[in-house]
Amino acid sequence: MENKKVLAVVGATGAVGMEVRKLLEQNKIMKNIELRLFASKNSAGKKILFKNTHIVIEELKPDSFKGIDIALFCVESDISMEYSKYAVERGCIVVDNSSAFRMDKNTPLVIPEINSDEIKNHKGIISNPNCTTIITLMSIYPIHKLSRINTIHMASYQAVSGAGIKAMNELEDQIKAYVQGKSLPPKEFKHQILMNVFSHDSQILDSGYNMEEQKAILETKKILKDESIRVSPTCVRVPVLRSHSVAISVITDQRLELEQIRRAILNSDGTTLIDDRKNNHFPMPVESSNKHDVMVGRIRRGLSHENEIMLFSSGDQLLKGAALNAVQIAEKLYHE
Amino acid sequence: MENKKVLAVVGATGAVGMEVRKLLEQNKIMKNIELRLFASKNSAGKKILFKNTHIVIEELKPDSFKGIDIALFCVESDISMEYSKYAVERGCIVVDNSSAFRMDKNTPLVIPEINSDEIKNHKGIISNPNCTTIITLMSIYPIHKLSRINTIHMASYQAVSGAGIKAMNELEDQIKAYVQGKSLPPKEFKHQILMNVFSHDSQILDSGYNMEEQKAILETKKILKDESIRVSPTCVRVPVLRSHSVAISVITDQRLELEQIRRAILNSDGTTLIDDRKNNHFPMPVESSNKHDVMVGRIRRGLSHENEIMLFSSGDQLLKGAALNAVQIAEKLYHE
Repeated sequence: MENKKVLAVVGATGAVGMEVRKLLEQNKIMKNIELRLFASKNSAGKKILFKNTHIVIEELKPDSFKGIDIALFCVESDISMEYSKYAVERGCIVVDNSSAFRMDKNTPLVIPEINSDEIKNHKGIISNPNCTTIITLMSIYPIHKLSRINTIHMASYQAVSGAGIKAMNELEDQIKAYVQGKSLPPKEFKHQILMNVFSHDSQILDSGYNMEEQKAILETKKILKDESIRVSPTCVRVPVLRSHSVAISVITDQRLELEQIRRAILNSDGTTLIDDRKNNHFPMPVESSNKHDVMVGRIRRGLSHENEIMLFSSGDQLLKGAALNAVQIAEKLYHE
Repeated sequence: MENKKVLAVVGATGAVGMEVRKLLEQNKIMKNIELRLFASKNSAGKKILFKNTHIVIEELKPDSFKGIDIALFCVESDISMEYSKYAVERGCIVVDNSSAFRMDKNTPLVIPEINSDEIKNHKGIISNPNCTTIITLMSIYPIHKLSRINTIHMASYQAVSGAGIKAMNELEDQIKAYVQGKSLPPKEFKHQILMNVFSHDSQILDSGYNMEEQKAILETKKILKDESIRVSPTCVRVPVLRSHSVAISVITDQRLELEQIRRAILNSDGTTLIDDRKNNHFPMPVESSNKHDVMVGRIRRGLSHENEIMLFSSGDQLLKGAALNAVQIAEKLYHE
């Protein structure tokens, strides 16, 4: 049997941290692991059932990382910034879900189905890309392999899970309040989310793009190793719990056949083709939620350019958009 | 005082018909009207309060149109097809909300702020454009006047009101069922709408575009009188009651300044500029619902072309997307 590896989840009680725990419990690749769970002082001491044993949640501290091989960080950027350095000093490899190191030149930014070869170049930290970027790139990478994509338009329909557990509760609470005829004051979000859609709740840069769109632009270039790729994104929040959907148009260098694209999506790891025109059945959150694959469909020709392809996809924000992608990176590290 | 004009609402009990009645009641331009209301046999005989008098709903029949000057048709295409000819035979001018005559060469397709000059060419029928097309074109026409738009990408976030009152009730019913922990079987729609988004519920053509997208493509060319304009649309239903939102990218022939565009939207009839980057305040359904203007904002440069402009807009589907646009056309006819 392989040597046991000690894995840690940092931020074990958050929306992504909980999904990581579930994925590690079911995991068939990392067979011999010891799990340690870290969270803030508030959650420390609580017990979590994992593979028939109870694990006590520990308070995250600078010296928490002694003896840990791989730590999956599921916390905000500022906490990642501070604690990842303690982890790296102790020889622990960090898989970081935050945006803290994504654009750092020394940090690989990895979607395993696309650029797992980058993992070996890590200097202690590997970044998990932004959720919308992962779901978009998973959808179009099978096309990119057939012919280089030079232009991307994308408009997102983003679930509240990307804003954390409190935002998920806020949507649920607004549903209850609506039925009781009460007002729906926003707390986590700036605006009511039930019965509404709004431009993504991240900071707006001088360019007019919000941070979520900026991530899609920059991370796409880094992951596809192509600074010349043009990305025009619009990121929008919708009242959906945990799956992001994206309306995408791409322009490829060569003209492709639609059947060729469908076959590529069908045969790619991590994508499921849902493209039933007759029954008006395409990717949607109620079906992509809790699934590992990103659902891709509505493959059709764009009308703005002879090489334009349009598609629509939907993937679980907490799984492939975050926890699953991180666990897949950890799987690669497990065998290092 | 001007001669009294007799107006009729055909489909007076539907989602759009009810809005038309409300708009006529408040209307300050058509001061001297007599209103008649038509619906199916089921609703005939019911009384509706209008300007302090009761109007009895009449059953729609072939000979209903005697003495009526203008009829606002708020019914499905098949009923429009059948009854508009009886109306026209009697000298009644039809303003039709359905898609029945929109692409007919002899029928003007009118958004009054854009092409009211077309009204005079009617042969008895004037068509009201598709709701998503109206909201999109209202948003971009101020730009088009500055420099011809040659390419449009749009992804819509469409309210359930476009599918009628029953679809609006379905969303409300699913909210109640969700709170009670019950399942949410779809009836009007093919898929659950609460906590979901799905590709528009209209027929899919061989091109892969659904009918809603096809309308956006063809109606845009007709209204802007430009067959060469390229439109790549994706139409998506979201759990919102009555306002459609659209993420739009346009490419203009000349490069425009963003401030020039903001000024144009601010100064155009029927549009309100909502573009507050600092407070992350942009157009959204909770604010555009029950408003006459289409809200337009998030004006920024696109990154796929040096002349690309991106924007996000939201407008009430039942008002400017349907009833209000029809009433505005009737206002023009009132003075004929």
